[in-house]
Amino acid sequence: MNKRVLPLAGFEKKIAAFREKPAPGLIIGGYMVDEITKNLPKDRFYDVICESIKCLPDAVQLLTPCSVGNGWLRILKIGRFAMTFFDKETGEGIRAYLDTEKLKKYPPINEWFFKLTPKREQDSEKLMASIRSAGGAIISLQKVKVDTDITKKKKDHKVAVCAKCHEAYPATEDGNLCKVCNGKISYYDFSGE
Amino acid sequence: MNKRVLPLAGFEKKIAAFREKPAPGLIIGGYMVDEITKNLPKDRFYDVICESIKCLPDAVQLLTPCSVGNGWLRILKIGRFAMTFFDKETGEGIRAYLDTEKLKKYPPINEWFFKLTPKREQDSEKLMASIRSAGGAIISLQKVKVDTDITKKKKDHKVAVCAKCHEAYPATEDGNLCKVCNGKISYYDFSGE
Repeated sequence: MNKRVLPLAGFEKKIAAFREKPAPGLIIGGYMVDEITKNLPKDRFYDVICESIKCLPDAVQLLTPCSVGNGWLRILKIGRFAMTFFDKETGEGIRAYLDTEKLKKYPPINEWFFKLTPKREQDSEKLMASIRSAGGAIISLQKVKVDTDITKKKKDHKVAVCAKCHEAYPATEDGNLCKVCNGKISYYDFSGE
Repeated sequence: MNKRVLPLAGFEKKIAAFREKPAPGLIIGGYMVDEITKNLPKDRFYDVICESIKCLPDAVQLLTPCSVGNGWLRILKIGRFAMTFFDKETGEGIRAYLDTEKLKKYPPINEWFFKLTPKREQDSEKLMASIRSAGGAIISLQKVKVDTDITKKKKDHKVAVCAKCHEAYPATEDGNLCKVCNGKISYYDFSGE
């Protein structure tokens, strides 16, 4: 939602309140949000897609009302450092990506991003200074039309109670058991009463 | 991270700053975080798994330093209203779930959760009052041991530049093209220069 995007100036302060120290990718993500929203009409609502699960979703969640939990932010595991804001009805939107050509002018960012220097040898002061000095200059924008099929809300399914664990789950193709009790997903064992 | 969990008292205020109005599931998610953290040692760090993408991830992100973008929060699409806090090294943790038996004592929450009343006929004041009065009384806890294989960091892969779009992507099995350029994932077309 464009109208209520936070000013970027307070972004690092907000990050500091949220996490211990600002990750480089998070700050660049903040500039991405800023570049996109400067170029979008101010009176419309937007959904967001992040192409990477690293850092970018947090930039969006800290600077806009779009979140994973409210469904306005989706993550597609493409692995590119890019995000798209788009109108849910028309699909029209803007995609921002880290421009590897522009990055060449900022060696500390380029080295960090392409992992050319081992992490322990990185000069994080220098990296952050380079990120702040680059701002939106390492980001490029594209006008895109998003396939709105992927953002259409699935028809609200009924809620069933699993015959084994007695917890509620979406009554879809899973029969009378939830995805854990029917063995489709497993991530824990019981370790106590 | 348990030590730095926010007091639940300020939770609704924090939600109000973040979203327009508190979703019922978000508030219940807040009580889940609270019930779990009351029962965990105070001096340890925890990762979190949410079993649903709805509301719960936002409760975790608002009340703890674990986020999707920093990798300390993972979402498994199981569809149960449950979350697990666990020690990344040992896998030991606590799982909280909405207890459908306990829910019977709170008809407004039960009706909302099982979608027994059409949304427009719901009395949201009554629902929120019932949620606040129930607090943690509709939640049950289980001691679990999480399979730490799923939380192990994948070996850091090299960063490649896609031969077609020239953006950076993880150099894995995808050859010399990113997942969009090789057609594995598609979500937009270009609509302008």
